[in-house]
Amino acid sequence: MRIVIALGGNALLRRGQPMTADNQRANVRVAAEAMAPLAADHELVISHGNGPQVGLLALQGAAYPAVETYPLDVLGAQTEGMIGYLIEQELGNLLPSDKPFATVLTMVEVDPDDPAFANPEKFIGPVYEQEEADRLAAEKGWVFKQDGAKWRRVVASPLPRRVFEIRPIRWLLEYGAVVICTGGGGIPTMYRPGTHMLEGAEVVVDKDRASSLLARDLDADLFVMATDVDGVYRDWGKPSQQRIDRATSTELSGSEFAAGSMGPKVGAAVEYAERTGHRAAIGTLADVEGLVAGTHGTSVVRG
Amino acid sequence: MRIVIALGGNALLRRGQPMTADNQRANVRVAAEAMAPLAADHELVISHGNGPQVGLLALQGAAYPAVETYPLDVLGAQTEGMIGYLIEQELGNLLPSDKPFATVLTMVEVDPDDPAFANPEKFIGPVYEQEEADRLAAEKGWVFKQDGAKWRRVVASPLPRRVFEIRPIRWLLEYGAVVICTGGGGIPTMYRPGTHMLEGAEVVVDKDRASSLLARDLDADLFVMATDVDGVYRDWGKPSQQRIDRATSTELSGSEFAAGSMGPKVGAAVEYAERTGHRAAIGTLADVEGLVAGTHGTSVVRG
Repeated sequence: MRIVIALGGNALLRRGQPMTADNQRANVRVAAEAMAPLAADHELVISHGNGPQVGLLALQGAAYPAVETYPLDVLGAQTEGMIGYLIEQELGNLLPSDKPFATVLTMVEVDPDDPAFANPEKFIGPVYEQEEADRLAAEKGWVFKQDGAKWRRVVASPLPRRVFEIRPIRWLLEYGAVVICTGGGGIPTMYRPGTHMLEGAEVVVDKDRASSLLARDLDADLFVMATDVDGVYRDWGKPSQQRIDRATSTELSGSEFAAGSMGPKVGAAVEYAERTGHRAAIGTLADVEGLVAGTHGTSVVRG
Repeated sequence: MRIVIALGGNALLRRGQPMTADNQRANVRVAAEAMAPLAADHELVISHGNGPQVGLLALQGAAYPAVETYPLDVLGAQTEGMIGYLIEQELGNLLPSDKPFATVLTMVEVDPDDPAFANPEKFIGPVYEQEEADRLAAEKGWVFKQDGAKWRRVVASPLPRRVFEIRPIRWLLEYGAVVICTGGGGIPTMYRPGTHMLEGAEVVVDKDRASSLLARDLDADLFVMATDVDGVYRDWGKPSQQRIDRATSTELSGSEFAAGSMGPKVGAAVEYAERTGHRAAIGTLADVEGLVAGTHGTSVVRG
């Protein structure tokens, strides 16, 4: 099978851990150990999140005022390099030495007319007092929204329309390479309106939505989202909560699952299952073999 | 022809320019305009330097003390992402929309027994007063050497032995893709002694040496090093200075050319020409079409 695995942020950094290179490497090693057994029998494509890593680069940049902080496309490209390297090296250490690997930098296209631009609501970066937020808004053109008692920058999170490097990724899979790509939802880009000139976009693309698009464009047989919860739950947080082992895309399209951190994953799974007729699976990284076998986590199928 | 072009640091950032994303993008655009005409008739592989970019990331990291500065392998991976993205996007904007591109993250192997480790002498990062240098040496295990009146960190610059991703790069070239790789001399790695476990190496690999190895392993027909000088000069800096249009590897192997910033380029050209029998060329990026044609810069051939 051709399998796209989207690694959640917790595969790279556990909540509350200092974001050192050593911690990230140790976590990636655990993720690699979980995924390595799959490489013998399957074509593997690995994508990953990058939220905390982009956040750190932005904080480091802000702490060194001599050079203006880099925009989100450039920071995203930096994290694709860093995280891709750690995954490639740690997974490579567990597989036969002749197994080919490639980390392919990936740009995704977003639409300047995406309705998300009219109402940016993806929080990024640290919280600020109102006065500081107003100053940054005036200086950099950033948009802020209230987050509890403080203020925080928001950017749009438009849908990904295209993964530009889909052909190279496909060619490498045909040669048997493990491919790491579309990190952080891909580097966000868009065409300058009225031209064919591509440029960076100051947005955040949802990693699971971009990975779903990747899986569809690659004609993957299975799309796995590995996170820190063992599946999708009905009545999450209530005494009646119950894990869903298997559901149709129609059953999961209701609003119950749209909110919260599981929402984008459910949306990406539904979209993938409906458009391809193949199965999507959501669960923990430790269970990834079971997610592939269909014995663990939540499976989403067309229907 | 299959051509490997190694872009010098000045293609990304001119001396004295603030290292903003905008400046780097504007410089990359000029480089892309110079290289674009070659893509119609040739297979192109583009490598690049990363010295100032790694330096900035290290400074930004040091300015944000909450998280320990990342090691050189991880910083190198970040710069391969950032610079590769800028090159891929700007060159892509100039070529037909169906031209495939891929930026492939590249690790190079160095030998823990390389004699360079016994005498680290590649200066990196800012200068320090002796007291601060002593403190950092004790705290981080860094090695410092005197640089004028101040002290500066030095690391080893061992020779690259292997480009790990050579097969994916070759496959992508066979499909007609422009490939960007081996940025900054590649991400430096080595096997933990006595094991088959690859890990990062706290070293700097010379970009031109790594590009020469890349060109040899890809059976490239031509290896071009684009820099800010229009060729190799005899008697450089003297009234008798004279550009060399064409020389054999033997003629350039003398010590006259080993010193200074041109030294590693001459060494890389000699090595490539001797081992492959193909031509290497050194000159300015603006002349890159002439370097490919053999009408500009300095050509180095076996002999």
